[in-house]
Amino acid sequence: MNFLSKNNIDKAHAILKPIILKTPLITNDTINNIVRAKVYFKLENLQVTGSFKIRGAAYKISKLSKIQKKNGLVAYSSGNHGQAVAFISQNAGINSTIIMPKDAPKIKIMNTKKYNSKIILYDPQKEKREIIGEKIQKEFNKTLIKPYDDFDIITGQGTVGKEIVEQIKIIKEKPDIYLCCVSGGGLIAGSSFYLKNSFPNIKCFSVEPEGYDDTLLSLKKNKIVSNKKMPKTICDALLMPQPGKITFSINKKILSKGFKVSDYEVKKTIKLLSEELKIAVEPGGAVAAAALLCNRINVQGKTVIVMISGGNIDDNTFKNIIKNNYE
Amino acid sequence: MNFLSKNNIDKAHAILKPIILKTPLITNDTINNIVRAKVYFKLENLQVTGSFKIRGAAYKISKLSKIQKKNGLVAYSSGNHGQAVAFISQNAGINSTIIMPKDAPKIKIMNTKKYNSKIILYDPQKEKREIIGEKIQKEFNKTLIKPYDDFDIITGQGTVGKEIVEQIKIIKEKPDIYLCCVSGGGLIAGSSFYLKNSFPNIKCFSVEPEGYDDTLLSLKKNKIVSNKKMPKTICDALLMPQPGKITFSINKKILSKGFKVSDYEVKKTIKLLSEELKIAVEPGGAVAAAALLCNRINVQGKTVIVMISGGNIDDNTFKNIIKNNYE
Repeated sequence: MNFLSKNNIDKAHAILKPIILKTPLITNDTINNIVRAKVYFKLENLQVTGSFKIRGAAYKISKLSKIQKKNGLVAYSSGNHGQAVAFISQNAGINSTIIMPKDAPKIKIMNTKKYNSKIILYDPQKEKREIIGEKIQKEFNKTLIKPYDDFDIITGQGTVGKEIVEQIKIIKEKPDIYLCCVSGGGLIAGSSFYLKNSFPNIKCFSVEPEGYDDTLLSLKKNKIVSNKKMPKTICDALLMPQPGKITFSINKKILSKGFKVSDYEVKKTIKLLSEELKIAVEPGGAVAAAALLCNRINVQGKTVIVMISGGNIDDNTFKNIIKNNYE
Repeated sequence: MNFLSKNNIDKAHAILKPIILKTPLITNDTINNIVRAKVYFKLENLQVTGSFKIRGAAYKISKLSKIQKKNGLVAYSSGNHGQAVAFISQNAGINSTIIMPKDAPKIKIMNTKKYNSKIILYDPQKEKREIIGEKIQKEFNKTLIKPYDDFDIITGQGTVGKEIVEQIKIIKEKPDIYLCCVSGGGLIAGSSFYLKNSFPNIKCFSVEPEGYDDTLLSLKKNKIVSNKKMPKTICDALLMPQPGKITFSINKKILSKGFKVSDYEVKKTIKLLSEELKIAVEPGGAVAAAALLCNRINVQGKTVIVMISGGNIDDNTFKNIIKNNYE
């Protein structure tokens, strides 16, 4: 498939239904009062494997041929896509190799191991995961499951947009704003596409960590721009140096603007989400909420959808974040 | 209504749909491996107002007459039922008074206040909430919304059973065991009734905190038995001295057996649920999971439903519980 359509996302959703969880869309009075808006959080941190990534991976793998499945899969990932590919592979009896940075959160490495994938850890300072992936792919004739720059992956991630539309219609709301994290841009491309299709007036915004705001910069210049530096950040899931070619071709048409948030703001947000929503969110999964809570955009009187994309945070990191006080 | 039926629960669910959240039913590989079973947790801690109580309260209130609504409501509650009544009342423009123990978790008192209810705090060592409730009810001609011993409340709580049935059918599982917390017994009565109706072979078990195992004792003796002592426990939501008359008349026919768990086991479980499911569960909401994880029952090879009934835990209590190590 080389295009994105509502129809294809609908079909993908039907395929994914027995595998994925229809995660809740929840609201919270305290947060609504803070920002003076009606905010609905889509809890993909509660998704199978702890992030939305299962959607794209499961859909992509469902479309492979028998021979491709027999030869096995390879994926590179900061962790969540890897877990998703490993989980689906294990359940489908497919051999998989996952390439992950050696400094990925322990929980992500452990979970991927749990699903019996072969794991290759690399040094992100010295090696390029794409090169390792390509090598394995060619040497063993394996199929590479890309993390975002693939129409099937984007279609799979788009199913979360379909769910949001269904859920928001039940409560008879009409969303004005959608805030979503961006790394490679697959999630925001698929979900914004579906949301815009159902609610043409909705404005969709990307949120990235400071230093990794390549989508923000690319949207400004209307062409793909890379991050100059690669500073340290706690948002391990959002470290892409530049938007994907396919994802950006979609996102530049759909997104209104980009925002960026600091690690401090992300930590403060993780604490608030723990206290108010009673959930643990990983740093990368909290950036959209951080943009909302740290006033990147005036949402007063609006109905806002906020993507909580993942929950794979190490316990010690979580405990350290919530025990601190933030102003 | 003075009986419980599948049809009435179905009707109640249709009424509740725009108000409540269809909370997720999730599974976790690590926990499945620990207990060697397929375990599905129903996350009512993510429900609107942080517990299942909204189901019964919303349904009961939906059935009141205009005059009853105009005269206002009164409810007594350890906290979660009070929040639910307060929330529904605020949204429906109804006046409400909630009677709560002065030592209820701060989060429960704060949330009830937030919904603009009048709050009366009483001393549970010296006063009886039923007497205060009756007095207010008579003096101001208010309608008392009972926490559990009322067919409409049980029917409302039963809607969570309907959701579990729908969710478990999608993934083509057939549950063998259902573990659910008990205080007054409304939740377990309504939900077990629905589950048994759809899966006649399912075995349903009550779980209570040590010292408050009146349902366990009553099931053994096949008649209502009260707790002798009222020891301290962290399970603030489950402090009923004895089963309800109506709830026990249902539960004695449906439940296979009762279990009890210690505060230590509950704390250990809250920590594990935080680490694995990435959620914050209140002590009373964690007892069913504690019975599972602390081997009260052999579940090997079975499919088990575990009710997580609420998430209203004070942040400091939560932080203190998860920072400790348990054997």
